[in-house]
Amino acid sequence: MDRREFNATLMAVSMASLIAPAALAQPAPPVRPRVGLLVHSDMILLDLAGPLTVFSIMQADVHLIGKTQQPVMTDVRLPVMPTVTFQDAPKGFDVLFVPGGLKGTVAAMHDRETVEFIKQQGEASRLVTSVCTGSLLLGAAGLLKGYQATSHWYVRDLLAQMGAVVRTDRVVEDRNRVTGGGVTAGIDFALMIAARLAGEEAARRIQLVIEYDPKPLFDSGSPEHAGPALVGDVLKRRQDVIREAESAAKAAGAALNL
Amino acid sequence: MDRREFNATLMAVSMASLIAPAALAQPAPPVRPRVGLLVHSDMILLDLAGPLTVFSIMQADVHLIGKTQQPVMTDVRLPVMPTVTFQDAPKGFDVLFVPGGLKGTVAAMHDRETVEFIKQQGEASRLVTSVCTGSLLLGAAGLLKGYQATSHWYVRDLLAQMGAVVRTDRVVEDRNRVTGGGVTAGIDFALMIAARLAGEEAARRIQLVIEYDPKPLFDSGSPEHAGPALVGDVLKRRQDVIREAESAAKAAGAALNL
Repeated sequence: MDRREFNATLMAVSMASLIAPAALAQPAPPVRPRVGLLVHSDMILLDLAGPLTVFSIMQADVHLIGKTQQPVMTDVRLPVMPTVTFQDAPKGFDVLFVPGGLKGTVAAMHDRETVEFIKQQGEASRLVTSVCTGSLLLGAAGLLKGYQATSHWYVRDLLAQMGAVVRTDRVVEDRNRVTGGGVTAGIDFALMIAARLAGEEAARRIQLVIEYDPKPLFDSGSPEHAGPALVGDVLKRRQDVIREAESAAKAAGAALNL
Repeated sequence: MDRREFNATLMAVSMASLIAPAALAQPAPPVRPRVGLLVHSDMILLDLAGPLTVFSIMQADVHLIGKTQQPVMTDVRLPVMPTVTFQDAPKGFDVLFVPGGLKGTVAAMHDRETVEFIKQQGEASRLVTSVCTGSLLLGAAGLLKGYQATSHWYVRDLLAQMGAVVRTDRVVEDRNRVTGGGVTAGIDFALMIAARLAGEEAARRIQLVIEYDPKPLFDSGSPEHAGPALVGDVLKRRQDVIREAESAAKAAGAALNL
């Protein structure tokens, strides 16, 4: 089905709850939440695709924000084309969203222009959000100081270096910051955002349309359940980029005077 | 992280179990499963992105197969560029995969060239698979006759018209046919394929890397749990395209002499 078809399933009611009761008395044009999603090289497509599907069903006004107009390459070798650049992007969103992908996140943390852009947009946005290692970039922009937050399990402890209170929940809400765990947590995250913006009934309807009734074959999706052997194996295989993330988090903490 | 980084986490061991014990005695080059994923207009990006992420971590030799070389537009307005065409595609895959998206699936069911291509590739492939409404196209190609299979909940009963035995499980395996339910079932599906091709340990490691430890906010991801009001609402909103799917399934069944 195309986006219009897919969306037609859900549109009217989803947005109704965004409108205050007083406004409902006089029919108002539907409110489309404005969502800005950062797209960066080496991001994980699935970090983006889960939330983007939910935002799309919500009829959101979606902006894919690139540093430039060049397509960015993702982990699965599908390029993503930005729809706006840092320069052209509207200032402030209903939802600012940063996906992960550790190598790309570390590169972004070292890039002054990207960090400054996220800082300014974060200060101007209604909800400041991320999935997977994207929260490290929010942290580097000073947006998680004093907030509870999470990240991909293998780097979430680094958030403390940037002033966050680290949580291990799959999705963590603290005031207007909403951060999700690794990769697939983006779906749980997005349904929480849908509930927050459009209400529980709209979120439930989206969940039914995307048939989100997960039945993992194994119980191996968290370090607690996967066990020390698998965890150690993954950490060993990723040790170089995790070490780079540690340096980046330390430098970011110092820049934030932490 | 980029694909190489992401994959480095998992590669060597993942593929070891593809090699028979006798072959392990003499080191052999790693076996990369050859995966062919159909890309079609109006497909749901998330149907593709879940399995593609898992196949990518497995270091699979991935082919995105388009009818032509033109980019195809997905539900979320991100175009996907085919890497091969029907004409250039290798004949037969370790995994042939068809994603869904109801409007696009119905269009494909009516397209002789697409149906014939899937039929020939299905007959030549080791595993014949789909997620979401993709199974309707497998059915139209005669590949589910006498097989148990599933689809997105709102059209799965139509598989019977093309000779399948309809199941309501999230992922259904019957000999070399593996079909998943709607949209997000692609992640459960792909981990099952990973276990089948590379063994349980590899599948568990992938699950840990993509942090697949789902915690849905609501229990509304299946028609059984969402309840009749929400189900009726979704069916009503999608009634036009579901009716088109009914006609396409009936015509396909007739063409298969069912």
